[in-house]
Amino acid sequence: MRISTRSAVDPFIVMDVMQAATDAEAAGRHIIHMEVGQPGTGAPREATQALARAMEEGALGYTVALGLRALRERIARMYGDWYNVDLDPARVVITPGSSGGFILAFTALFDTGDRVGIGAPGYPSYRQILRALDLVPVDLPTAAQNRYQPVPGDFDGQDLTGLLVASPANPTGTMLDREAMRGLVDRCAARSMSFISDEIYHGIEYDKKAVTALEVTDECYVINSFSKYFSMTGWRVGWMVVPENHVRVVERIAQNIFICAPHASQVAALAALECDGELQANMDVYRANRALMLTGLAEAGFTDIAPPDGAFYVYADVSAFTDDSRAFAAEILERAGVAVTPGLDFDPARGHATLRFSYARSTADIEEGLGRLKTFMAAR
Amino acid sequence: MRISTRSAVDPFIVMDVMQAATDAEAAGRHIIHMEVGQPGTGAPREATQALARAMEEGALGYTVALGLRALRERIARMYGDWYNVDLDPARVVITPGSSGGFILAFTALFDTGDRVGIGAPGYPSYRQILRALDLVPVDLPTAAQNRYQPVPGDFDGQDLTGLLVASPANPTGTMLDREAMRGLVDRCAARSMSFISDEIYHGIEYDKKAVTALEVTDECYVINSFSKYFSMTGWRVGWMVVPENHVRVVERIAQNIFICAPHASQVAALAALECDGELQANMDVYRANRALMLTGLAEAGFTDIAPPDGAFYVYADVSAFTDDSRAFAAEILERAGVAVTPGLDFDPARGHATLRFSYARSTADIEEGLGRLKTFMAAR
Repeated sequence: MRISTRSAVDPFIVMDVMQAATDAEAAGRHIIHMEVGQPGTGAPREATQALARAMEEGALGYTVALGLRALRERIARMYGDWYNVDLDPARVVITPGSSGGFILAFTALFDTGDRVGIGAPGYPSYRQILRALDLVPVDLPTAAQNRYQPVPGDFDGQDLTGLLVASPANPTGTMLDREAMRGLVDRCAARSMSFISDEIYHGIEYDKKAVTALEVTDECYVINSFSKYFSMTGWRVGWMVVPENHVRVVERIAQNIFICAPHASQVAALAALECDGELQANMDVYRANRALMLTGLAEAGFTDIAPPDGAFYVYADVSAFTDDSRAFAAEILERAGVAVTPGLDFDPARGHATLRFSYARSTADIEEGLGRLKTFMAAR
Repeated sequence: MRISTRSAVDPFIVMDVMQAATDAEAAGRHIIHMEVGQPGTGAPREATQALARAMEEGALGYTVALGLRALRERIARMYGDWYNVDLDPARVVITPGSSGGFILAFTALFDTGDRVGIGAPGYPSYRQILRALDLVPVDLPTAAQNRYQPVPGDFDGQDLTGLLVASPANPTGTMLDREAMRGLVDRCAARSMSFISDEIYHGIEYDKKAVTALEVTDECYVINSFSKYFSMTGWRVGWMVVPENHVRVVERIAQNIFICAPHASQVAALAALECDGELQANMDVYRANRALMLTGLAEAGFTDIAPPDGAFYVYADVSAFTDDSRAFAAEILERAGVAVTPGLDFDPARGHATLRFSYARSTADIEEGLGRLKTFMAAR
């Protein structure tokens, strides 16, 4: 049978790193994992306990497509608590992870051939999901002086139907402040471009609170998830906030293409929203790890970074050392026993000279990994 | 923001029935639900217990995109047990429900504008998922004398890139026997059409075992799920079997658009595969319900049906009573207190004269519902 043209998506380069790390571990080596994009912690304890109780009590069949009403209401309330935004729960759509949110948003907003701007560097799957839907991802190379976030000048003059931003961003951890967010929202509105804000790393922020696009406009799609701050990656549950007049459209697409997000995960997610104690303890770990990273990477020689405002990544310009980040990552794995991600996954044009370091795992691992990196770089 | 053209999917008409039923219940009426498409039972007890244990033991983060190896291997083994088919576990892809399987299959196999044949009547979301991906669903009106299953003559002469069949089918419950399956597979192969077999109702069969397309060819996509026989609708976990040379392509799409199926659901599904005792007890209920339906519907006057080989539906030609199945379903709900599905969801061209009756719920409900239908029809 013929394989479609649209399915020719790029593989993740990090998968090769992960495979090499797994092979090394199978051969008896000890590897520090700075390539991973997920917390080492599981769902909060109260979340799994709530699910255990629910499994005793009911069948957990399909929910309605938009998700459990209690969960939608609780998320809406969170926008009041976190951002002082008054949000109608009817605008909250529960999705099968942020992945499900992207599929719904792109399908609801764009038609075949539409061009959608994404910042480079950025999350690689943006590009691949757009392509799988026969849309055209347009990389907008962002500038280091803009902390790798897009500014209107990056897409002025380009033919785009939409713009997708992420704050805090993967791989850089940098954020858009309210003024920068408003500048992008206003320019998109003026150009009749759809605006999508990926806020999956909200809650994992350090010096100041991340800004939601909903603080500056209702005319946007906001995509979020329980995977990061709420530490529930494998549960595949997230949410989307859409303009009021888009709810019915998104509901109909979701009914047909997903039916609903996993019921069990929705139950766990509702309980996770009450677990700030445990989640803030996770944040203490990220905070300690981040401080260690900023000092330790600099000591190792990785000085060209934008300090992350949020998320659990540091993106480093390593052009002083290599113009082949893939080979460099392989060398670091081989010689230092530390797995890191080559920038090519995030920025096909410029990622040959960048690396992403994740600090999502335990502080002990971060300390060990930084020590290894220092030794490796000193010997190089 | 502009709403895309491709998102103009049809609403489910059954949703109006469900809303009317909910309104009637809120007003104090007792409604029998013969409109539902899911078991009233939950996941098998051992499945939820296995998940409860797993939640105590580990983080349940992302799995690899193709799913837990143990689950893929156990599913492959099931093909030996159920069909005497020797299946390489590497060809099994765990999906977020059969919904996820359809998205993956359509994306891997078809490009924008490709025409895909589907039997009418058929599961309404086939049409909508295809449209959301900018593919063209082509209804193939099937004949009552073919028990509403497509035959090669139904699509000879049509320009199609693929064919999607379902056996047992929704809404009719009829099956393709091996000869019929082979006839379709061979004709598709001869015409270089991709062949997709929806086998979601396998296991829920009465007089004989359903035939998997894998008994006659490896050149097909088979889509299945834990939602029906395994009674796990809300868990959003299913699987797909693809040709060996399609595995990498499907893996890369899945990595990007889903990351993975819900980890917790995969754990529960693995345990559900060992729960035949409980699942066969569910089957005893379906079997009793089916016998009651075949007698009771006939006694009520619904004599024009194809007796279902599998699934838990009866599709009835009601042209003797109406040419407006939507109004007829509303009348049955209003006067008999029984919710049923108008055929228009399944067959836009001919469903104005058909109804689908589901017998997925308790035997007591089926008895009560049939009694009400008899009284209603006698008084009409």
